Amino acid sequence: MIKINRNYLKLQGSYLFAEVARHVKEFQELNQDKRIIRLGIGDVTEPLSQNVIKGLNEGVAHMGKRETFQGYPPYEGFAFLREKIAEIDFKSKGINICADEIYVSTGAKEDTANFQELFDTSVKIAITDPVYPVYLDSNVMAGRTASFKNGRFDGVHYLNCNEENNFTPDLPTEKVDLIYLCFPNNPTGQVATKEYLKKWVDYAKANKALILFDAAYEAFVREKDIPKSIFEIEGAKEVAVEFRSLSKTAGFTGTRCAYTIIPKDLKIYDDDGKEHSLGSLWLRRQATKFNGVSYIIQKGAEQVFTKEGQEEVKKTIDYYLDNAKIITEGLTKLGIKYSGGKNSPYIWLKTPKKLSSWEFFHKLLNDCYVVGTPGVGFGSCGEGYFRLTAFGKKDDVIEAIDRLGKLKI
Amino acid sequence: MIKINRNYLKLQGSYLFAEVARHVKEFQELNQDKRIIRLGIGDVTEPLSQNVIKGLNEGVAHMGKRETFQGYPPYEGFAFLREKIAEIDFKSKGINICADEIYVSTGAKEDTANFQELFDTSVKIAITDPVYPVYLDSNVMAGRTASFKNGRFDGVHYLNCNEENNFTPDLPTEKVDLIYLCFPNNPTGQVATKEYLKKWVDYAKANKALILFDAAYEAFVREKDIPKSIFEIEGAKEVAVEFRSLSKTAGFTGTRCAYTIIPKDLKIYDDDGKEHSLGSLWLRRQATKFNGVSYIIQKGAEQVFTKEGQEEVKKTIDYYLDNAKIITEGLTKLGIKYSGGKNSPYIWLKTPKKLSSWEFFHKLLNDCYVVGTPGVGFGSCGEGYFRLTAFGKKDDVIEAIDRLGKLKI
Repeated sequence: MIKINRNYLKLQGSYLFAEVARHVKEFQELNQDKRIIRLGIGDVTEPLSQNVIKGLNEGVAHMGKRETFQGYPPYEGFAFLREKIAEIDFKSKGINICADEIYVSTGAKEDTANFQELFDTSVKIAITDPVYPVYLDSNVMAGRTASFKNGRFDGVHYLNCNEENNFTPDLPTEKVDLIYLCFPNNPTGQVATKEYLKKWVDYAKANKALILFDAAYEAFVREKDIPKSIFEIEGAKEVAVEFRSLSKTAGFTGTRCAYTIIPKDLKIYDDDGKEHSLGSLWLRRQATKFNGVSYIIQKGAEQVFTKEGQEEVKKTIDYYLDNAKIITEGLTKLGIKYSGGKNSPYIWLKTPKKLSSWEFFHKLLNDCYVVGTPGVGFGSCGEGYFRLTAFGKKDDVIEAIDRLGKLKI
Repeated sequence: MIKINRNYLKLQGSYLFAEVARHVKEFQELNQDKRIIRLGIGDVTEPLSQNVIKGLNEGVAHMGKRETFQGYPPYEGFAFLREKIAEIDFKSKGINICADEIYVSTGAKEDTANFQELFDTSVKIAITDPVYPVYLDSNVMAGRTASFKNGRFDGVHYLNCNEENNFTPDLPTEKVDLIYLCFPNNPTGQVATKEYLKKWVDYAKANKALILFDAAYEAFVREKDIPKSIFEIEGAKEVAVEFRSLSKTAGFTGTRCAYTIIPKDLKIYDDDGKEHSLGSLWLRRQATKFNGVSYIIQKGAEQVFTKEGQEEVKKTIDYYLDNAKIITEGLTKLGIKYSGGKNSPYIWLKTPKKLSSWEFFHKLLNDCYVVGTPGVGFGSCGEGYFRLTAFGKKDDVIEAIDRLGKLKI
């Protein structure tokens, strides 16, 4: 008999954003005259830049001619792209990361979800609460958690993020092996200082643990002292993997390209304590379960890492940071508390009148036709919080904030 | 301590095609004056068709304008593509498959590798020997096999394919739950009749088993009585999933687009025998670990499923089938036995003089500068066999066959 992976039965409800989409669809069907503004899923709205379009067009043209046609791409990405990433994202900023430590993929979601496969099911994971659901759900599916009780999975070490610790969690109180960190954070919008990240690197070294560092929002960091990469921290190359993405940086959510940095010297261990190269292990995984990113898309991505491309990126991020400012100023006026919205596209607001996250979701949808994401969907510490994103057309953001005044609370 | 997934340590050597590539690279470095012809990995060489290029260009243009810009694609693919696939691949051929039973992805390799995640680690798998390595390795990584002994993994039910059974294996001699079949077959080039597939469908129904049917090469089937889809078999919609790909059909190996068909009524079971929808389960998996296929690529793929696109596909496949004919005629002249090469891009030859697969690989590379794939890389029944593919430029194929005369055996 063909039996279901019993771990899937532990999953709670549907994937958060699918659930939000379902509610929005229902509302729209019943209220066809209302124009809904979406500040929910964090999807970009600005078109691809001129240079990226130029690169994509070149890629398409190459695929149409026998002389320049490309078959299977390398599992780890084309050298032309990996070399430019190494130069622009790291070397030019004084961080020693080489092209062969960069693994190109279709998305940071895919990579952060798949990466746990490399580790034994017995490794103890630490994740923040609230958290980007993919880190947790991918581990649930893999059988790394026990059953779900009172809003949490047994077997997971949760790192509470709350007002008291300024949404930057304390070090674990028990020994953990695999630590998921994300800064600038999704969903809280909080950033980390170098001193703060150094504590984590030291913890990982002392415990032979591994940090999976999600830097998908690094392009939003504008303050000079805030690190964009975990590799700015001394010793991080021995204990950390970093995930980066063009989704938010260059508007690639619908175009699909990301990359993961695995330092050459990074090792993990077998039962006998023998070391294994983590980069080789990931390549083995990718060679078996993945066939590389479309040549066309990599040609477009290449253009992000040119002088002109970098200027375009900055301009688009400026646009979204302006949106964030409009939102945070509006919230301040309404007397609503929040974190984030600076060096980050996310605004994490405390619901007024102690409304639950989903109560606020429905209120915002019904009263203002504005969609956001219920904080509790990111974990039990998110109850009473709500995530807005700065991704949207400026006029829509202005209108959404204007409509917020109509909230009947 | 961060521990390795111990199942990865069971994997044998590197991924087959990566190993072949390494040998070829070494040879080329030592013999820089030799022009190597690759009939190994099965990568297409003909450029994308005009209509596909048109679709891709349109997709790129849409991404450059705010009004037509696309963010995150649906996890299951855009309706515009799924509807055309349902019409052209199935409905127009009298097979009742609907758009919402079609799940678009970046590759059949990805889907066939990932699909096993949905099932309990205890399910008994049946795979052919020889086999496309991805089916086996993905199950090894998931811990569904014991250790490797005498060329085989304990815990797997191997279905021997040999001259005696005309490379179409007999039904299992023990009860199995998950069956991987591929017709036209990679690597043997063998096809299946309807009567033959009906036996498998009946077996699956009787045993509540599931068939994963890889139809990546269906476009090569030209004989009317040979089924292109498992869904041409009565009852298959209750027991089978089908994987299809544009890689070989429309030259998409470097462009990346495939699709998997999961009939709506297909169910799997939990420990209590309760039924679960397989399609919903796959969508939950994709929503958590995947973010859809690039809009641009789906716009290109859409054009494959137009009248003009279908004519272009036929023309390109004709080109490769002509290559196959050149190869099989050449082998016949040299007195080398083979299967496949008809209704299939693969030619599975028996090595002359009882050479081992790798001996023949090195001889062919050293004497003729031609690359093929050692049959033993696909399983122990492949020892003494060798795979050539019809993917290549016609002139190269003619020259490769000409060079075969120089084999020093």
